[in-house]
Amino acid sequence: MKVGFIGLGNMGSGMAANLVKAGHDVTAYNRTPSRVQPLVARGAHAASQVADACHGEVVITMLADDNAVEGVVFGEKGVLASLSNGAIHISMSTISVALSEKLEAAHTKAGQRYVSAPVFGRPQAAAEAKLFIAAAGPSDTIRKCMPLFEAMGQKIFVLGEKAPSANLVKLSGNFLIASVIESLGEALALVGKAGIDRHQYIDLLTSSLFAAPIYKTYGGLLADGKFTPAGFVAPLGLKDVRLTLAAAENLRVPMPVASLLRDRLLRLIATGGAELDWSALGSLAAKDAGLQN
Amino acid sequence: MKVGFIGLGNMGSGMAANLVKAGHDVTAYNRTPSRVQPLVARGAHAASQVADACHGEVVITMLADDNAVEGVVFGEKGVLASLSNGAIHISMSTISVALSEKLEAAHTKAGQRYVSAPVFGRPQAAAEAKLFIAAAGPSDTIRKCMPLFEAMGQKIFVLGEKAPSANLVKLSGNFLIASVIESLGEALALVGKAGIDRHQYIDLLTSSLFAAPIYKTYGGLLADGKFTPAGFVAPLGLKDVRLTLAAAENLRVPMPVASLLRDRLLRLIATGGAELDWSALGSLAAKDAGLQN
Amino acid sequence: MKVGFIGLGNMGSGMAANLVKAGHDVTAYNRTPSRVQPLVARGAHAASQVADACHGEVVITMLADDNAVEGVVFGEKGVLASLSNGAIHISMSTISVALSEKLEAAHTKAGQRYVSAPVFGRPQAAAEAKLFIAAAGPSDTIRKCMPLFEAMGQKIFVLGEKAPSANLVKLSGNFLIASVIESLGEALALVGKAGIDRHQYIDLLTSSLFAAPIYKTYGGLLADGKFTPAGFVAPLGLKDVRLTLAAAENLRVPMPVASLLRDRLLRLIATGGAELDWSALGSLAAKDAGLQN
Amino acid sequence: MKVGFIGLGNMGSGMAANLVKAGHDVTAYNRTPSRVQPLVARGAHAASQVADACHGEVVITMLADDNAVEGVVFGEKGVLASLSNGAIHISMSTISVALSEKLEAAHTKAGQRYVSAPVFGRPQAAAEAKLFIAAAGPSDTIRKCMPLFEAMGQKIFVLGEKAPSANLVKLSGNFLIASVIESLGEALALVGKAGIDRHQYIDLLTSSLFAAPIYKTYGGLLADGKFTPAGFVAPLGLKDVRLTLAAAENLRVPMPVASLLRDRLLRLIATGGAELDWSALGSLAAKDAGLQN
Repeated sequence: MKVGFIGLGNMGSGMAANLVKAGHDVTAYNRTPSRVQPLVARGAHAASQVADACHGEVVITMLADDNAVEGVVFGEKGVLASLSNGAIHISMSTISVALSEKLEAAHTKAGQRYVSAPVFGRPQAAAEAKLFIAAAGPSDTIRKCMPLFEAMGQKIFVLGEKAPSANLVKLSGNFLIASVIESLGEALALVGKAGIDRHQYIDLLTSSLFAAPIYKTYGGLLADGKFTPAGFVAPLGLKDVRLTLAAAENLRVPMPVASLLRDRLLRLIATGGAELDWSALGSLAAKDAGLQN
Repeated sequence: MKVGFIGLGNMGSGMAANLVKAGHDVTAYNRTPSRVQPLVARGAHAASQVADACHGEVVITMLADDNAVEGVVFGEKGVLASLSNGAIHISMSTISVALSEKLEAAHTKAGQRYVSAPVFGRPQAAAEAKLFIAAAGPSDTIRKCMPLFEAMGQKIFVLGEKAPSANLVKLSGNFLIASVIESLGEALALVGKAGIDRHQYIDLLTSSLFAAPIYKTYGGLLADGKFTPAGFVAPLGLKDVRLTLAAAENLRVPMPVASLLRDRLLRLIATGGAELDWSALGSLAAKDAGLQN
Repeated sequence: MKVGFIGLGNMGSGMAANLVKAGHDVTAYNRTPSRVQPLVARGAHAASQVADACHGEVVITMLADDNAVEGVVFGEKGVLASLSNGAIHISMSTISVALSEKLEAAHTKAGQRYVSAPVFGRPQAAAEAKLFIAAAGPSDTIRKCMPLFEAMGQKIFVLGEKAPSANLVKLSGNFLIASVIESLGEALALVGKAGIDRHQYIDLLTSSLFAAPIYKTYGGLLADGKFTPAGFVAPLGLKDVRLTLAAAENLRVPMPVASLLRDRLLRLIATGGAELDWSALGSLAAKDAGLQN
Repeated sequence: MKVGFIGLGNMGSGMAANLVKAGHDVTAYNRTPSRVQPLVARGAHAASQVADACHGEVVITMLADDNAVEGVVFGEKGVLASLSNGAIHISMSTISVALSEKLEAAHTKAGQRYVSAPVFGRPQAAAEAKLFIAAAGPSDTIRKCMPLFEAMGQKIFVLGEKAPSANLVKLSGNFLIASVIESLGEALALVGKAGIDRHQYIDLLTSSLFAAPIYKTYGGLLADGKFTPAGFVAPLGLKDVRLTLAAAENLRVPMPVASLLRDRLLRLIATGGAELDWSALGSLAAKDAGLQN
């Protein structure tokens, strides 16, 4: 398929590479052009401006936040202005439910199609085409996008016709991950201060009731106390918790654990952790217990 | 092995049955004698008082709380007074770290041996010999108990020589489970109020990043909104969170999520949920969002 | 002084009446025109549109929220378009720090002057000219506004040259009031469930260490359990806590009590309390304790 | 009146001195005998053991915690064993509701009388006879104690016949004070990080809606960032919050702000603040915002 790809960050570069590998005709754009080169070397075309990535049947955006997506879509010669009639915009970034609603309305009005398909997984999973993809939008449009999703992910979940539902599910998923990090951080502070080996403890958990990838990944990071290099920096984590709380406030849903996570991430960032992986929020419990790590 | 078993509640009756099934010579005691009958039918002996269950090499206690264990162990003609020299008391109840320290000291002083071996798993897992067992105590004593553990559990974790460590790990594990329940409850309130199907949502989570037994068990209970019959009643959940916080306070470890869980469980119990499964704490988020369930 | 007054709600109508009473030449505008009549009866002029209230030396806005202020100021024939060169806009509404910064910039650019002067006090205090006024802006402009402030308030605090500072102080003050309500609510739930008389308890507090107006006002409301008619409805309380948290997030300041208050207010509104006085947030603690009130 | 006084700490020494000053015949006991000397210089008698302070009509205990009171009352030659028939024990320490119930029962059984009369106020207030005293117990007994209360306090509140009610009210009062400290700490972190002068801010608050002694005392300490010497050390603050939560748990009353305060105090103590005044809990918000103080 002829597909544009906008946003070659830690996640996007692996995802786009997998599209190329699967035989798709990819034209890629990135604000910092140097990041396009490795992809061109694998067979993609370089777009020198956003519009150049919008001439195919599909354009995918994978950007850092609402602002970046708004700029790229609604800006001059942006996605909205450049996409042809009936072409599809797949938004894979983690953005707000409100922006997703706005995109859905704008593309529909412009005679274009819109699908939300945010992903679960860290950069390594993106590179290995092992992402989990939560997609929502009109079912025929989703069907058309399936080959692309399959090239990037290990499993695709279709959540219905309303695109913004996928964004809400994605945000709620990141909230659940963050809550695992916090809870593990508290448990590790407790057993660690009692002198129990933290790695053995994580082994016990993850080979019994908590045998899930999340507990292995984040349990390991926390037991190691290793938060650089960041797979997902703390300010992005804060953004996602903030968007979760914003969606929750619009729906009138109090989420006390999300409130706690927001406070933890704010603190982490205010006290020197702005460049750390967001899992460092789980180290604050140990700090509060007077432990070194 | 000749083994006594004290406490035939939801968990203990399954565990004791598995010991009988594995060929051990079990003498069982329960405060309410009628619960001993089914076990006798399978080949166990009935003890009419605690002391009668203390004449073997090992006696196991599986009781509801600290008070029950203290009564049985330190009471007149209790375990401490009845166990012979060198015999082993395996405490499998979820008790406080402080009581475990007291038991360790008392048995040692009396020339007896003490092992802590609390379990993870609900009544069905107990019945199917699929418990996870966290054991701590002198290594030769642990070794001697292994055949018993293997008859009751699917996996045994040995946590070192200090018996109370196992109790702390057990409490921290229950804390982690409760925090999963709360987080799932908040996420379900959020997506549920947005009109997303709750069962489909749990399916998505548990077939991707959260593919752990805990998420399947409690996600299902929460999506169903089904909290009776209780596998583990709310007051027992409150007890465990309280004991976690008590151990944490002794070690000077603040645990904000544990504090939240304590408040949730108190509220659940104060507002009519004292007989519900503790997973009902996860339904409070939906209540606070104005949802029916 | 020739002064326009925009916004005759529960607060504004009392404030404007006090300006008239003090001899100022007041032209008042309200979206629902009928609310202007009582003021006209006391000697004010009625403005049929926003612009008509902007022909004096000063125009005061006292509106419900950011949206209302933005509409009135930046809308067609709004305050910004209508105010003459050098005239002063006194913004007395409780608005966001961000909007106050935007207003300061826009008025300055238009050759107009801007002062922030939010108030503390409920409708009765507004009617009795007993408000506390926190004002910030250029000192000569503040000086010029003093006679107006003195006609409406019992005490005026000048907080420096940066107008948005006054908005932050106002928001922080409402946060402090809300935190008093929550804490009192918890304390009343505790002593109330123990059978201690709640009015006697409030008397004790307010005639000893807590002899402050806030404790008397809100302690009384909570002991009575009387939340209608609302002096300040719950959604406005939520707005103020949200604005506090937004300003705090921009400054990277975690505020866990503010997070709790946000969750409480969301819950109150989601469960049928949208029309109640915001002090009803303090009744949730009693609900969670299983008390009637 | 012939009265014994047990416990000459920061609070007790001032209180006992005021009894002497009012003309009462005071016999004082303190574990560290040197603290009795200044009182003897003012006219008191020294007791070399607890029993020697129990020969009058009344004995007052003013000790650090439950353990100290239990030791002094139930120990060998303690208050219970030494007090004559009909004599009164006034417990003025901040102790648990549970211990107060136990004391009430024990003294009644021994034919003695018991009154709970915990106090509000810091050491300076104790020295100046400006304490607030919350008393509960049989009304004739209370009446008999009035001259003593009046010698030590500026105001006495009588809370009914059940002595433990006074302890609950005292604990709830300390909870309210701690919640003021936390809220002020958060507000100061917010306005402080925005560059607003913290002392001016406290002045504004305490000369308007928050014109209460508590806000002046603790607002000043927090604005100064001055937490030594401690009037009331952090571990005693933690004790009181713990006792509040214990009483609340017995009554099934969730108190989320109290839970937060407990976590704050634990953290303060775990991270080097064990010797600081408990108001230092209010400095943690600033730390979490990345401020120096």
